Amino acid sequence: MKISNLEELNTPCLILDKTLLEKNCSLARKKCAELKTILRPHVKTPKSIEVAKIALDNQVGPITVSTLDEAEYFASAGFKDILYAVCIIPKKLARLEFLQKKYDCVIRIVVDSILVAEATVDYSNSHSTKFEILIEIDCGEGRSGLYVEDKKIVEISKIFSECNKTNLMGVLTHAGHSYSTDNKTEILSIANKEREDALAAVKHFSTFNNNNPIISIGSSPTMLFASHLNNISEVRAGIYMFWDLAQASRGICKIEDIAVTVLASVIGHNYQKKKIIIDAGALALSKDISANRFMPEVGYGFVCDSNSGKYLGLNISEIHQEHGAIDISNPDWFDNLPIGSLVRVLPNHSCLTCAGHSSYNILENNMIIDNWKRTNGW
Amino acid sequence: MKISNLEELNTPCLILDKTLLEKNCSLARKKCAELKTILRPHVKTPKSIEVAKIALDNQVGPITVSTLDEAEYFASAGFKDILYAVCIIPKKLARLEFLQKKYDCVIRIVVDSILVAEATVDYSNSHSTKFEILIEIDCGEGRSGLYVEDKKIVEISKIFSECNKTNLMGVLTHAGHSYSTDNKTEILSIANKEREDALAAVKHFSTFNNNNPIISIGSSPTMLFASHLNNISEVRAGIYMFWDLAQASRGICKIEDIAVTVLASVIGHNYQKKKIIIDAGALALSKDISANRFMPEVGYGFVCDSNSGKYLGLNISEIHQEHGAIDISNPDWFDNLPIGSLVRVLPNHSCLTCAGHSSYNILENNMIIDNWKRTNGW
Repeated sequence: MKISNLEELNTPCLILDKTLLEKNCSLARKKCAELKTILRPHVKTPKSIEVAKIALDNQVGPITVSTLDEAEYFASAGFKDILYAVCIIPKKLARLEFLQKKYDCVIRIVVDSILVAEATVDYSNSHSTKFEILIEIDCGEGRSGLYVEDKKIVEISKIFSECNKTNLMGVLTHAGHSYSTDNKTEILSIANKEREDALAAVKHFSTFNNNNPIISIGSSPTMLFASHLNNISEVRAGIYMFWDLAQASRGICKIEDIAVTVLASVIGHNYQKKKIIIDAGALALSKDISANRFMPEVGYGFVCDSNSGKYLGLNISEIHQEHGAIDISNPDWFDNLPIGSLVRVLPNHSCLTCAGHSSYNILENNMIIDNWKRTNGW
Repeated sequence: MKISNLEELNTPCLILDKTLLEKNCSLARKKCAELKTILRPHVKTPKSIEVAKIALDNQVGPITVSTLDEAEYFASAGFKDILYAVCIIPKKLARLEFLQKKYDCVIRIVVDSILVAEATVDYSNSHSTKFEILIEIDCGEGRSGLYVEDKKIVEISKIFSECNKTNLMGVLTHAGHSYSTDNKTEILSIANKEREDALAAVKHFSTFNNNNPIISIGSSPTMLFASHLNNISEVRAGIYMFWDLAQASRGICKIEDIAVTVLASVIGHNYQKKKIIIDAGALALSKDISANRFMPEVGYGFVCDSNSGKYLGLNISEIHQEHGAIDISNPDWFDNLPIGSLVRVLPNHSCLTCAGHSSYNILENNMIIDNWKRTNGW
């Protein structure tokens, strides 16, 4: 791709700052190396092969996915060690088998019910196909998974141990509730429980299918705040690659760390209402407002200078499908941001904002040096 | 495409009930015919060629778009009369010129500033290319457009009248604030002001570039509640094709009219928290919660039986990127909705929910008879 500047881009579009991305990824790898655990990046945030490779220090390596579409996309690019971290259902096993065989890869799956454990064993036997499995543990998030004391953990492990094609590898848990607080002591306590529950759960297995069970935990906040991760096999985290205002609002990152922004054009000046109208609305930004809980001034995003990336002290106060409105109290902004000028918007929640777009424009040294595709859908 | 049943579909995905779509479209055409005005469907809702043709009684015809991507998509399918209803900026004129020439179509544009009016005239002169233009009027929404008494309307009309390549056709206004109330008297009053402001604005033109100016108004609520539309050239509306819970919550449609749902699979039973977990989360449903203002029980969507489409009295109480959670007070639901079973979710806001998906599965007589692509992006 030819090198271009921001003015040449069609708006709205995503801008990904490569230097910040590399810095964020490098810090996470360093943290996991210090903690003596493996980082298994969650690619549901970027859904991009190039970004996943940067997260893995320019290699293919272990990744986490949230959809079978992602599994297929990354498997087709040579990723061989994939964890599909959303509970599987019997209907999806055929596609999983197909992908594992087609790409000669492992797509490890997650279960939290006897029904699915039995169906997976049945499928393995009748199709003579292998699956690697983790049992999901609920360490307090209250979404999927079994409590560590749940007797079903033993039952499920028994079901798998009686089949030589299904390999129960260990447990998985996700402290997603670490996003619900900005209190560091509370995050540390959540991180401790995430680790302890995962380690305790595997002890309930009826027999160990291998002597070195996988203990997979993670979220970006608990990874960064963990005091230690002794005996934890791997950490799954995704948002750390890009960061966003939701994480900044909770003190997990700084605003200056956020690597992804939405480039938008000013398309109107509403003098009556003192609003600047931009061409990034609900589809370009998403309707996620999760930063507002701890930073109510965010609205639908912070508005930054397009060249320096510096926050201008303005926010997106209102969005429609293709319009965003910036309330201004000082009419000088009409001169500072004329119609046709560019702004960059910091997102509330990178995963959701990026999902409205099909690619990233890669920014380095104030120039757009590349365009990286992402996958969307299921 | 081979005919299939819901069980064969990959979840999550969109289901579009063709019978309801056709009924909704037919009623809108009938209403506009009674009001003696032209319906110019806003295809930002479906972004699908097949749906647009149904809206136009199985023909190509006048449409409204919200992005140049939509303009290109529909122009490439033979639509010749396109209105791009978001204010243009100078940078986008080159693509507009390219599309008009490539597809031999008209993509009418909208302006609300002197700067853009002048830039459009300059572009027309220097590239010897024609544009059709409407001036946007703000009839109370407070987004884009000029107030009807704004002297800039005269100035803009003068700028265009001095160039023989730019044809100022009339005015456009959008009573988007009709969505902010469930009070019928108020909607009627908004509909009246939308009509009156549009008619008044065109009288301010310095000279008429044609003797029969276009008066383009519209939103689904004001179209349906208008007492008359005398002298209104055309009505733009989109959500009426699909409807959604935001509109139902305001009494604009009935829940039974909603043509689009998200098909999801039950992927987990959380007995501890009495939650059923489905594989439709924030990306499949969107984070729009606009129905909740008038119907706080909606949450992220109403849960329906997958076969009958009937509302089960359950809602999506919580969403993560790929998980949705249904709080249940009665544990019988664990039996009624076993893991692997299907539900259909009525969306808060169809335009945003559909934007997460790349196609519609078309439902007729309880079978999936086709798959229609949609365009996304800019």
